[in-house]
Amino acid sequence: MQQYYGGIIRRQQHLIRCLGGDRQRNTLLSVNTRMQSVMNPTLEADSLSILRSISPTLDSSKHKGQAGKIAVLGGCREYTGAPYFSAISALKIGADLSHVICTKDAAPVIKSYSPELIVHPLLEESYSVREEDRKSVSTLVLAEVDKWMERFDCLVIGPGLGRDPFLLDCVSDIMKHARQSNVPMVIDGDGLFLVTNRLDLVSGYPLAVLTPNVNEYKRLVQKVLNCEVNDQDGPQQLLSLASSIGGVTILRKGLSDYISDGKEVRSVSIFGSPRRCGGQGDILSGSVAVFLAWARKLVDKEGPTMSPTMLGCIAGSALMRKAASLAFEDKKRSTLTSDIIECLGRSLEDICPAR
Amino acid sequence: MQQYYGGIIRRQQHLIRCLGGDRQRNTLLSVNTRMQSVMNPTLEADSLSILRSISPTLDSSKHKGQAGKIAVLGGCREYTGAPYFSAISALKIGADLSHVICTKDAAPVIKSYSPELIVHPLLEESYSVREEDRKSVSTLVLAEVDKWMERFDCLVIGPGLGRDPFLLDCVSDIMKHARQSNVPMVIDGDGLFLVTNRLDLVSGYPLAVLTPNVNEYKRLVQKVLNCEVNDQDGPQQLLSLASSIGGVTILRKGLSDYISDGKEVRSVSIFGSPRRCGGQGDILSGSVAVFLAWARKLVDKEGPTMSPTMLGCIAGSALMRKAASLAFEDKKRSTLTSDIIECLGRSLEDICPAR
Repeated sequence: MQQYYGGIIRRQQHLIRCLGGDRQRNTLLSVNTRMQSVMNPTLEADSLSILRSISPTLDSSKHKGQAGKIAVLGGCREYTGAPYFSAISALKIGADLSHVICTKDAAPVIKSYSPELIVHPLLEESYSVREEDRKSVSTLVLAEVDKWMERFDCLVIGPGLGRDPFLLDCVSDIMKHARQSNVPMVIDGDGLFLVTNRLDLVSGYPLAVLTPNVNEYKRLVQKVLNCEVNDQDGPQQLLSLASSIGGVTILRKGLSDYISDGKEVRSVSIFGSPRRCGGQGDILSGSVAVFLAWARKLVDKEGPTMSPTMLGCIAGSALMRKAASLAFEDKKRSTLTSDIIECLGRSLEDICPAR
Repeated sequence: MQQYYGGIIRRQQHLIRCLGGDRQRNTLLSVNTRMQSVMNPTLEADSLSILRSISPTLDSSKHKGQAGKIAVLGGCREYTGAPYFSAISALKIGADLSHVICTKDAAPVIKSYSPELIVHPLLEESYSVREEDRKSVSTLVLAEVDKWMERFDCLVIGPGLGRDPFLLDCVSDIMKHARQSNVPMVIDGDGLFLVTNRLDLVSGYPLAVLTPNVNEYKRLVQKVLNCEVNDQDGPQQLLSLASSIGGVTILRKGLSDYISDGKEVRSVSIFGSPRRCGGQGDILSGSVAVFLAWARKLVDKEGPTMSPTMLGCIAGSALMRKAASLAFEDKKRSTLTSDIIECLGRSLEDICPAR
């Protein structure tokens, strides 16, 4: 992939040199977009139209909850920022309610970031549970989460989850129940670590979305396809990977995002930012969750065009990229994830005005 | 040094009286800068060019982590602001990930300042560990930090660390491991208290940077050179001090900052602010850490010109001074450290535009 990107970048740099002078800065991103669309004309999704088509109209007759209830499963003693970023992004995109289900240690901190979130201190890590109590604690955690399960339109599993074995066992049980209840799941971060070692948790579940970055994708390919990442034929390999996990949808993050549900592949190359500060993947997981929940309602009504998971990934990717590009325009090198979240609203309004 | 500065200031005051009227205020800083450059033409570093030359270009093909992963070792029951200032400054300058390793008490508070930081509640103070448990706790702390060590591009040791003997023993062990792994260290605040009493921790380590203020410098000179600070020949004494500690780099903070690695001395006198609110040293330590990490990659590639520690100190000092001057322009007497941090992005963009 390095080699492939290297080629793109060299050609970009040549083009930019040809353009010359003051316009260089402003044209870089749009050249980037156009070049990639030209290189892969059949793959590039019409992401802005898709985003517009699945976003619900705002209608004064609707009541709380109808625009989506999202829950993020993540947050432990070590990580608290990631679940916050994911959950607050879901709200800022238009979900009505956003929950975080985390460990008891993480809850007060995540609550302190924002009074907008509903934070459930339900999970436990090994260090806080005696060996002999694990079975009963695990049953209790599952029962508590089950009370809420039917109300969630989508789960995000993994932001700041950590890798504690007892906690991951509980999360595995929650995922089984979510699947039985047909609740869609967006899986990122430590959730991908779990799933890569427990493919049965998502295999064959069409409402599962995996959102791997470079390293997470590499581990998935090695585990599932038993080979290395093939940069020469990236889209085909992604299609095979999604198909091999029984038709889950995979959003492979990179210079362009590539998305496949094992039946088709689409890319999203618009906008973007060169800042790679940690936390951007969490915005994406929260965004995909909301759009997936919306797309699902639409597909239920209007019959299938593209799968709701594909639609959700395409819209989430496009919005995230637009917001990152707006934040970068303003904050440049000092852009942080919070700055990008602050641009979600303006990005949505640019792409899909509320009225 | 007091006497030396006294002379500079008297001459400045005379010049300003000659200039007269409304221009007085605006010219103060630039006169300051020019006077010092004139007085020490061979010492003043071309700090803005150095900052530009070591800052990486922002490139869409890069992925998370490549622009630097910094960790701040500090934060205890008493102090939580200092490690936050240092770690958030590193992020705002362009690092991709910024960690804080602190005591269990300090962690929830530091986490709550910002969801952007990854805060590890790993350290312990004497009051929370029984005498007989100290050995095992110390081993555990070291093992936990070691899991992360190889991922860090630079450690900042000392902001808000406190002076608990058991905690400082753990930090000494961590420093030994960092040194074995060739991880650069920027040492400030209570880290300098530790190092002044345990010179072996840094002696002969070319990737160590000490950033003493007036009092910390005085104690170092007394301890290492066994004499008092000599203001008549400040640069030469700084050179001797750095050389006597086996070629560590020392950034002596003051009206001008003086920097030496025992081979050469450079000053940074540009910009600046007359406000001396607490916390500015923490911005500096975080800044030096990022620039040092960047300079090291550059020096690895392009062969040595100046040592990466010298380059990192010069760039960090220049940026800190620029941000402080911008913040002071806006907030005047009421300027706080957070205001200066808010100006890091604009300062960078002025000196080294992102595109």
